[in-house]
Amino acid sequence: MDNNKIKPEWFPEGGGSEYASRVVKGISTDEKQAKAPTVPLSPRRRRLNVSDYVEGVLSRNRTVIGQAITLVESNHPAHMELAQQVLKELLPYTGKSIRIGISGVPGAGKSTLIETFGTMLCNQGNQVAVLAVDPSSSITGGSILGDKTRMELLSRNPNAFIRPSATGGTLGGVNRKTRETMLICEAAGYDVIIVETVGVGQNEVTVRSMVDFFLLIMLTGGGDELQGIKKGIMELADAIFVNKADGENKQRALAAKTEFNRILHFLQPITGGWAPKAYTCSAFTGEGMAEMWQLINDFKEKTTVSGVFGRRRQKQTLDWMYTMVEDYLRSSFYNKSEIKRTLPGIETVVINGEVSATMAAKQLLKTYNDH
Amino acid sequence: MDNNKIKPEWFPEGGGSEYASRVVKGISTDEKQAKAPTVPLSPRRRRLNVSDYVEGVLSRNRTVIGQAITLVESNHPAHMELAQQVLKELLPYTGKSIRIGISGVPGAGKSTLIETFGTMLCNQGNQVAVLAVDPSSSITGGSILGDKTRMELLSRNPNAFIRPSATGGTLGGVNRKTRETMLICEAAGYDVIIVETVGVGQNEVTVRSMVDFFLLIMLTGGGDELQGIKKGIMELADAIFVNKADGENKQRALAAKTEFNRILHFLQPITGGWAPKAYTCSAFTGEGMAEMWQLINDFKEKTTVSGVFGRRRQKQTLDWMYTMVEDYLRSSFYNKSEIKRTLPGIETVVINGEVSATMAAKQLLKTYNDH
Repeated sequence: MDNNKIKPEWFPEGGGSEYASRVVKGISTDEKQAKAPTVPLSPRRRRLNVSDYVEGVLSRNRTVIGQAITLVESNHPAHMELAQQVLKELLPYTGKSIRIGISGVPGAGKSTLIETFGTMLCNQGNQVAVLAVDPSSSITGGSILGDKTRMELLSRNPNAFIRPSATGGTLGGVNRKTRETMLICEAAGYDVIIVETVGVGQNEVTVRSMVDFFLLIMLTGGGDELQGIKKGIMELADAIFVNKADGENKQRALAAKTEFNRILHFLQPITGGWAPKAYTCSAFTGEGMAEMWQLINDFKEKTTVSGVFGRRRQKQTLDWMYTMVEDYLRSSFYNKSEIKRTLPGIETVVINGEVSATMAAKQLLKTYNDH
Repeated sequence: MDNNKIKPEWFPEGGGSEYASRVVKGISTDEKQAKAPTVPLSPRRRRLNVSDYVEGVLSRNRTVIGQAITLVESNHPAHMELAQQVLKELLPYTGKSIRIGISGVPGAGKSTLIETFGTMLCNQGNQVAVLAVDPSSSITGGSILGDKTRMELLSRNPNAFIRPSATGGTLGGVNRKTRETMLICEAAGYDVIIVETVGVGQNEVTVRSMVDFFLLIMLTGGGDELQGIKKGIMELADAIFVNKADGENKQRALAAKTEFNRILHFLQPITGGWAPKAYTCSAFTGEGMAEMWQLINDFKEKTTVSGVFGRRRQKQTLDWMYTMVEDYLRSSFYNKSEIKRTLPGIETVVINGEVSATMAAKQLLKTYNDH
């Protein structure tokens, strides 16, 4: 049980005050300007209203897209209210992209692979948005510089839009921000959305829950090197690509591919009617990138025909709604001062075997309902 | 999201009326007797009080043990209150057994294996209790006849106590009943508790969450036959035994063992400091049964020394307390009539993309808090 439960950021009623004072880049400044109406505002400094955001996003104005994302990332109650109004208008224009999740062991070369893969897609005329899920950045203070320099080539491509991960707050908060950023990008016409896991958090499941196709990037190496693969992560994958299959490493990459295929054979596929397989690629030489894109298109076609594609998206949206509801219910409980006060003592008597877990749970709920 | 959410049975306040009318075998009868005090009661018909239950269980009176289990299985508020008082007295005597979970693919021969294994343990002087987790029996109406005949030999052994699975109610309800039945058996001096998964429910995770050692029973067969293994189940195991390793099947069993060892090598062990391995056995010839028991004892010794054993038990108890709290919070929400009434409509607008998931969650929570 993770006792580190905090108030969900997306439902600030009565609990958002700690966030309200946080300065949100680009928005707080606008607010200050708004309080001094005698100073003439330059167009780009003007406080945007709902239709400004909507028109800007739909016409793929990169500045406005960035501002809209900053808006959905804000924890300020007024911004959250405005963000939801903007999203409501944009919703009819969303859902037309292919949503690809990319994860992998540290050092697997995810960034380089996304750069190579994304650049290829852009050069073929696709509009590519790259987003990241990184709850750990709330501790490190974010890695915006790292993100900026990581995909230098792709970030300069006019068909690409790279957004560093939303920083600050809980996994739930980052989750909401990434999902809503994805919707904004889709409304802006980006037809390939790549959601990348960053950091070492337990975020593969979160990314899997918001994408159509989940790609796992692996490295070569025998069984021993791979024993540390996070539990259950291979079961999430629609495909595994063994990266760095170049030069002297190529033979080992092919051997690893065979080994992964053997394991995949024993796992239940995550997507109905699609058998995940392992492949090799090299982000360095570009080998395997075209095959990766072909595979994703085959996947989309096959699952769209079977109805799996549409049903998963509907389920993802509803699950997400229920996750938010239940996160709020839990945090209301654990944040109640009377619960916070009595919980450590109750844990102790339960651990010592003085009170049964059932009795303790009843007592906690009585405390909750009485206060 | 599973929308089939019902009120947890263990917290009947304001929601237990539907259970109160349910006749609980052996207890409701006693209650009727209690209302007619002029009729002399035979000792075994007398309504038991807390100390009757406690003394009966501690002296391993099989009739009283059975009545105590019936008491914790009851959903009647008064019985639940009494059950918790009994458990409070028994708690100091619990925790001294080894708790073994046994699961496996259908047809793997779990029952025969438990019969052979349990009989061996009983003949060595151990006291063995066999419990089952089977939420599906709430649908089929239970399989008490099936359970009785399944382990004919073991059930006649004076050192064994076989309890058919608690029937009726949610997985959460069955979960609580099995955990508390386990505590009663431990207080009665049973030093080996086997918790078996029955039925086709998602109950391996539940069993894993209440035992020290989790054993997975498999069958021979190449990759194709085994592809249907439930996702993530191999990661739960502390050991895999390939059953039916006898006669012409022995060679194939050895090959399957090798294959399973290869896969286990890639999975992260569930128990810190213990590498799960695959073995062969035959419940028919008895081969491998002594090795199975030796393995479990090695496991207990090794994890007790490292502290993993004790920490897992503490964590299991606390997790279970939190699970009950959160089940209650969820069901309070989903059972509120105003939520039940509006939920289908909200799901529809979210699926149709008319309202964002965040907006819908806020609306649902506002409805919940306002009513």
